[in-house]
Amino acid sequence: MKSIITISREFGSGGREIGKKLADSLGIDFYDKELLEIASKESGITQELFVKHDENYTNSFLYSLVMGNYPVTPDGRINPELPLNQKIFLAQFDTIRSLAEKGPCVIVGRCADYVLKNNDNVINFFITGSMPQKRRRILERYDIEKNKVEDFIRKTDKRRASYYNYYTDMKWGEAKNYDLCINSSKTGVDGAVELMEAYIRIKESQ
Amino acid sequence: MKSIITISREFGSGGREIGKKLADSLGIDFYDKELLEIASKESGITQELFVKHDENYTNSFLYSLVMGNYPVTPDGRINPELPLNQKIFLAQFDTIRSLAEKGPCVIVGRCADYVLKNNDNVINFFITGSMPQKRRRILERYDIEKNKVEDFIRKTDKRRASYYNYYTDMKWGEAKNYDLCINSSKTGVDGAVELMEAYIRIKESQ
Repeated sequence: MKSIITISREFGSGGREIGKKLADSLGIDFYDKELLEIASKESGITQELFVKHDENYTNSFLYSLVMGNYPVTPDGRINPELPLNQKIFLAQFDTIRSLAEKGPCVIVGRCADYVLKNNDNVINFFITGSMPQKRRRILERYDIEKNKVEDFIRKTDKRRASYYNYYTDMKWGEAKNYDLCINSSKTGVDGAVELMEAYIRIKESQ
Repeated sequence: MKSIITISREFGSGGREIGKKLADSLGIDFYDKELLEIASKESGITQELFVKHDENYTNSFLYSLVMGNYPVTPDGRINPELPLNQKIFLAQFDTIRSLAEKGPCVIVGRCADYVLKNNDNVINFFITGSMPQKRRRILERYDIEKNKVEDFIRKTDKRRASYYNYYTDMKWGEAKNYDLCINSSKTGVDGAVELMEAYIRIKESQ
């Protein structure tokens, strides 16, 4: 196994659990929120700020244009004049690239598929789910009223899509952006892992 | 194997070849353009008209609204006052449903996933491809100038998307609409068939 694996996922689809099981089965490292801690250490920006801005898009694009800010200074550092959310995105960007250089791993969310799109060794998975199963999963894990779950799921996915669509030139959740998209409600967590392993075996034998 | 299988596909992704191989391997019937001939026989509309309107959306929605046409008459027949493209869509709709009632089969395109969405035995696949491989496939099969291939591919997909988005309440190519989406350029035709068979085995054992 020589691939870097990215997993994008609908909220409640079990993407994190599936990614963790896949990483364990392949014997490689796994990064989801773990990535924020590393990016915080490498960038010197506090972890709290990473958590606050995590996959959360706030509109400072116009501000950035008006201020004429460039993301990277001529000597290759992140421009200190950039709005905070863009600095945080770029720090994650650097962390994702340095993790990918270290060797095979699984990275969940945070536009990792986009960041690594020029890397030939990357496999991009997208995990979806059917609403009844996503509802059940979220109710088991979050302290939330039953009648607010679907709204919570939709808003979280909308936030993830806005974040992705803002920072990339692609659209979150379009099948053509990914190598394999699986509805985990139909396969279960273990079935999804089995399909991903089959995919990796087939792709690496081409 | 008890499932009805629908395959939606980007133009040039090899969806038809993949679907045919899957049907042969499973020992079940296969319908792509074959469906038009059956729908023509069942509806009495000539096959030429089915071919002309095949996955081709023409905007008669407003006309239909203005005329106050209802798609089906009170006694369950297709309303003869409907614009032709809608009559053709509804005749295909009937054919797809009657094929699905007969037993397991593979149906390519023509909104079959939407038509059968309330049927529990349906598995919906979507096949994508990377542009260099799609270019190569189309150049091998169509008499077309090299510098016009990408435009031809984009326009054909746009037509398929318009047709699908017009007749359904879903969006063509969004991962969440399908059970499994595969980029066939990464797996090859046989690899895609292998993944689909693995998916069917996993889903039917749940």
